[in-house]
Amino acid sequence: MEPIERVRIRAREGDAEVERDDLLAVEEPLEIRVRGRHGSPATSFVTTMRTPGHDEELAAGLLFAEGVLARRSDLEALERPSDPRIERELRANVVVATLGEEALARARKLVRGSVMGSACGVCGKTSIENVIPRDAPPLEARWKIEPGLLYALPERLRERQSVFAETGGLHAAALFDRQGGLRDLREDIGRHNALDKLIGSRWLAGELALGENLAMVSGRAGFELVQKAFAAGIPLLASVSAPSSLAVDLAEACGVTLVGFLRGKRFNVYAHAVRIDSR
Amino acid sequence: MEPIERVRIRAREGDAEVERDDLLAVEEPLEIRVRGRHGSPATSFVTTMRTPGHDEELAAGLLFAEGVLARRSDLEALERPSDPRIERELRANVVVATLGEEALARARKLVRGSVMGSACGVCGKTSIENVIPRDAPPLEARWKIEPGLLYALPERLRERQSVFAETGGLHAAALFDRQGGLRDLREDIGRHNALDKLIGSRWLAGELALGENLAMVSGRAGFELVQKAFAAGIPLLASVSAPSSLAVDLAEACGVTLVGFLRGKRFNVYAHAVRIDSR
Repeated sequence: MEPIERVRIRAREGDAEVERDDLLAVEEPLEIRVRGRHGSPATSFVTTMRTPGHDEELAAGLLFAEGVLARRSDLEALERPSDPRIERELRANVVVATLGEEALARARKLVRGSVMGSACGVCGKTSIENVIPRDAPPLEARWKIEPGLLYALPERLRERQSVFAETGGLHAAALFDRQGGLRDLREDIGRHNALDKLIGSRWLAGELALGENLAMVSGRAGFELVQKAFAAGIPLLASVSAPSSLAVDLAEACGVTLVGFLRGKRFNVYAHAVRIDSR
Repeated sequence: MEPIERVRIRAREGDAEVERDDLLAVEEPLEIRVRGRHGSPATSFVTTMRTPGHDEELAAGLLFAEGVLARRSDLEALERPSDPRIERELRANVVVATLGEEALARARKLVRGSVMGSACGVCGKTSIENVIPRDAPPLEARWKIEPGLLYALPERLRERQSVFAETGGLHAAALFDRQGGLRDLREDIGRHNALDKLIGSRWLAGELALGENLAMVSGRAGFELVQKAFAAGIPLLASVSAPSSLAVDLAEACGVTLVGFLRGKRFNVYAHAVRIDSR
């Protein structure tokens, strides 16, 4: 499946009107299923609306962010369903993860958890306690960057995003090294998916901790982006626009430097400004 | 709880840096619980991340969009939990809906449905079949507007949004009459919540069908916004930015006129252009 679709539209400008082609970002559901190593049937873990492409990375990144994947041995395989009776279009929207025993138990517990719909996660405070694993300490501030380094990131992100720029409908998440070099970028109709794909690609490549990296996302920063950055050990998350109150609270609690409104030669720091030189 | 929160930030511009106050859009979870009329315990229907304010409207709009609420008699009451042992902060993030018997059965079925995580809704086509209720025919084109009327909407939306404009982090959904007059507007950190609040407020006021209205949302249009407009009988949905492929497919299937990139004196029509005069 392609990430971009061509449609016929009526374009109006002032009093003039033309019929022409237009490019849309594709939005399709991806179902992530999990199963054990010994041939047990796969069960549904989650279905997310995403832009097709890098689906295995998205599945790995999402399972990692949710705490299902920790060590490499937790994930045996990521595949499309093999049953030939499943039609081709459906197969393209399903990824099956074969998990180790402990990872499978964690996944099953999460599915049950969302079923229970208990009161946990209902007030802001409780939900922050829930998203930070008890055994994960806040990230420590091991390094510091110059403010000028941040100014260059949005342009580098936009340059690489240009392939999809025509649709106007895609978010991007990019990973930079500490010198501001762009390492990788992923795009998706959902910001959280773009970050999952980015982190998932590193995880699948065997890079399990990203403490020497910065991440940047287009648009705004909700709490789930901070959660994903923290899970991957990324100490600095920047966004083009505003963070939410919960994103700031969470960044504060888990040691993530949160930068917002990074545009031109300006930005705001909402949490852990210590990683950015203030001279 | 307030929809805006004041925080202390470090603002950098070029080589200058100041510490100052900044305003953030609040993001907190709202849990919607459902129960029957005869004192049965309330169970969780869904938890959504939202900006506090108009919570009852959000609950009504969401239950309506999901097909739980149809007739007025389906909803007996919308209240905060009354148990005095529940702490105040938690109460502010929970709304309990007392439902008629049939509505409660529909709600319970939906919760079970999301648990099952079955293959339905996994390929685009199937999911469109799922979101359009079998007994709901596509909306008919009963009227036509002048293109110039649309040009005025973004400015009217922005004017009313100015209260929250300072945070830069809120989406808006607005309802207009067929003359382009702004009837109502709601804001939220989630676009879908803003539309649920808007439609929920009309539903609670006894206005169950909105066939003489246009809706406009800030930002992009995903399929769930088209779904909500269709459920409320709103025949025209406009957005400032791009729609997704699934939003276009769904609008096509359910008779909703879908307008995108409505900015200045231009827009694109992605589905059912018949409601906009082409002269």
